[in-house]
Amino acid sequence: MLEELKQKVYEANMALPKYNLVTFTWGNVSAIDREKGLFVIKPSGVDYDKLLPSDMVVMDLNGNKIEGGYNPSSDTPTHMELYKAYPEIGGIVHTHSPWATSWAQAGRGIPCYGTTHADYFYGEIPCARSLTPEEINSAYEKNTGLVIIETVSAKNVMSVPGILCNNHGPFTWGTDAANAVHNAVVLEEIAKMSYRTETLNPAIKPAPQVLQDKHYLRKHGTGAYYGQK
Amino acid sequence: MLEELKQKVYEANMALPKYNLVTFTWGNVSAIDREKGLFVIKPSGVDYDKLLPSDMVVMDLNGNKIEGGYNPSSDTPTHMELYKAYPEIGGIVHTHSPWATSWAQAGRGIPCYGTTHADYFYGEIPCARSLTPEEINSAYEKNTGLVIIETVSAKNVMSVPGILCNNHGPFTWGTDAANAVHNAVVLEEIAKMSYRTETLNPAIKPAPQVLQDKHYLRKHGTGAYYGQK
Amino acid sequence: MLEELKQKVYEANMALPKYNLVTFTWGNVSAIDREKGLFVIKPSGVDYDKLLPSDMVVMDLNGNKIEGGYNPSSDTPTHMELYKAYPEIGGIVHTHSPWATSWAQAGRGIPCYGTTHADYFYGEIPCARSLTPEEINSAYEKNTGLVIIETVSAKNVMSVPGILCNNHGPFTWGTDAANAVHNAVVLEEIAKMSYRTETLNPAIKPAPQVLQDKHYLRKHGTGAYYGQK
Amino acid sequence: MLEELKQKVYEANMALPKYNLVTFTWGNVSAIDREKGLFVIKPSGVDYDKLLPSDMVVMDLNGNKIEGGYNPSSDTPTHMELYKAYPEIGGIVHTHSPWATSWAQAGRGIPCYGTTHADYFYGEIPCARSLTPEEINSAYEKNTGLVIIETVSAKNVMSVPGILCNNHGPFTWGTDAANAVHNAVVLEEIAKMSYRTETLNPAIKPAPQVLQDKHYLRKHGTGAYYGQK
Repeated sequence: MLEELKQKVYEANMALPKYNLVTFTWGNVSAIDREKGLFVIKPSGVDYDKLLPSDMVVMDLNGNKIEGGYNPSSDTPTHMELYKAYPEIGGIVHTHSPWATSWAQAGRGIPCYGTTHADYFYGEIPCARSLTPEEINSAYEKNTGLVIIETVSAKNVMSVPGILCNNHGPFTWGTDAANAVHNAVVLEEIAKMSYRTETLNPAIKPAPQVLQDKHYLRKHGTGAYYGQK
Repeated sequence: MLEELKQKVYEANMALPKYNLVTFTWGNVSAIDREKGLFVIKPSGVDYDKLLPSDMVVMDLNGNKIEGGYNPSSDTPTHMELYKAYPEIGGIVHTHSPWATSWAQAGRGIPCYGTTHADYFYGEIPCARSLTPEEINSAYEKNTGLVIIETVSAKNVMSVPGILCNNHGPFTWGTDAANAVHNAVVLEEIAKMSYRTETLNPAIKPAPQVLQDKHYLRKHGTGAYYGQK
Repeated sequence: MLEELKQKVYEANMALPKYNLVTFTWGNVSAIDREKGLFVIKPSGVDYDKLLPSDMVVMDLNGNKIEGGYNPSSDTPTHMELYKAYPEIGGIVHTHSPWATSWAQAGRGIPCYGTTHADYFYGEIPCARSLTPEEINSAYEKNTGLVIIETVSAKNVMSVPGILCNNHGPFTWGTDAANAVHNAVVLEEIAKMSYRTETLNPAIKPAPQVLQDKHYLRKHGTGAYYGQK
Repeated sequence: MLEELKQKVYEANMALPKYNLVTFTWGNVSAIDREKGLFVIKPSGVDYDKLLPSDMVVMDLNGNKIEGGYNPSSDTPTHMELYKAYPEIGGIVHTHSPWATSWAQAGRGIPCYGTTHADYFYGEIPCARSLTPEEINSAYEKNTGLVIIETVSAKNVMSVPGILCNNHGPFTWGTDAANAVHNAVVLEEIAKMSYRTETLNPAIKPAPQVLQDKHYLRKHGTGAYYGQK
């Protein structure tokens, strides 16, 4: 079942090592079929060079495994909460990509210092609060999703398609699996350049709002004129 | 038309990912045929691995598309202003290369700390001022070109063949497309080494002027003796 | 003799340049056959591109060469002390991998700043004390092993499968040669991210103990639920 | 003439891009035939991917070109002074390798922070003083050599086989061309790790002298026991 979606999720997972976003098995991608209410996710702890499209696990939104010979990623409950909260999300990526993870470990959101950021993320990429001991010790992965939702809440979830989990690492999302991976690559690049920006100018402030607006809206929404649209 | 120039511009664009100067489609190269008064530029938002020489867009210096199935790069008006202002420029590159972009985001020009810099850029590589809200909200890409020209103005444009746009990224130029790419690679390398120089010695001053003169003039002008000239 | 183990140790040594953990010959891997009481180790100073499985040297735990045409690694006495002290250890890696070595040269242990660390190392990765002049000038490599043991002593050796030797570099270990290499890769990645974490937030504290417990125990021990176990 | 030496010098030059020590043509290697009193050096400004063994230029120690269709490297007088001053030197490398050049631009020698350094360089890798305006404006490349010699003077030239030229970049040397390249790779790796060591511990002091002695003498001199000697 869902062979086409499995293939796409497989390819999106394989893109993670290609883009240097993961070491060993430290990442996972999923995507959802909204009509069927089922999502497809990477199995837990399987090496990328042994992974096959048919290894992808099919889950429903109640956390039941519908198909698959392997256990799903241990982060599956996080993905599930995001799919339930945001109908706009079609694909989700989690990695420990080193630059974004360094910001997450520092407990800091990434300010918007320039147009590369503003082209994809409208404003700061937030860092979620730490989970409480109670949240960690019961349904940790589900609570990780709930804290992401708590942080995103007041915003349009697609205008800032990613977040940092404190002391952990990034999650990104998108319209589908490939788009979520695209945003994971962008986040890593932004995290790298923002680190260096701060070293070069410790007093730096975020880019002017008018410039952020210009770049974000040049690529998104009804007035967009970037690309071949 | 301009098949040979399209081929060269295509190759120069393809050199950007080869030299690790771009992620996804974050860059563009153009070159001009001064006799015909036409320039050739990369289309907007097309993946590098799908790009063909025949996809290059031909523009005139009034901003009219003369030939091409795609929209030209959204940065086309910036290129056009530079071609109009400086008859010496034969090719232009824009990237979001990470080291140069970090300086641009920090709002800082790159001081000349050594001979690598002085071999190619005669003095500091300037960072242009921020655009005003009015400049951003009307003809943004054209105004980006005008602010570059305002910054370069008093200098020989070819003696410092590149600039940083505040909160944005670098533009470089040269005698043709390949030479502009060459300067983009040099700028990125200089940006990296200058960052590290400042970390190692926060009190560092620019290299002595006499050394800058020696190295720049060893490679440029009538007294040059570097290479096979 | 021990052809299978030689092959595994060979492959583990060849993985070091593949994972960018060594320059030239700056690393060595060994593994032990506990039943026979013999361990197999890379020869000293032989280029990786000339290395053959049959070049691996067989040693006993008294430091006698049992088989092999080459001298064993000069670090052999360090490996031997660790095998003698810890029956749990099946394989050992020494490298001068650049990020971990930078911490070792700084004389600092690596605090646990996040889940990537906690997934593999339970608490800080310690930096051993400097050897005394006497320890350096007599049986230096053996004393390096003894100082590692002194530092590890109070802990479960497998819960923190690596250490930094002051002004020198890392040693890691594992259940076998491949697992010890795996831990060397993880250590290097953690060393890189922890460096950047401190730059981004100089006041950063280690991750909460409850989060460290959660992640370590999610992957290790009787309650583990990561992967396909 | 000197076909074998040309081949070795060619291969050593081609190793520079392989080891990521040069961008474009920013480096050169030479080697000397002491019996004939002639040295072979890379031509100036020729791309690495067009270079042939037969392009290598043969020079005598008075600066006369003995054979070769190209101009020799513009740094030839620096190489020549070093060959004249130090009969032990068989090969010389100059690069603008980014980490070593960052220290050179910062005007700082590289302290010995650990065993990786001590295995190859006995003590600090010095940074030569700036040239005076007079030295720069007359026989600049020759004077670069003389200032290197002034800095090295009191030491055994082979025990610290490299130096940083202020605001410029590194020179390394060795018993032959390949050995000089080897030392250039080591220098770059040391420069990288020493930078990070200082960031991690701004108060760090050089490694204890007794440890430096141990490691240097473990690999060099009559008591050496590293490798297969």
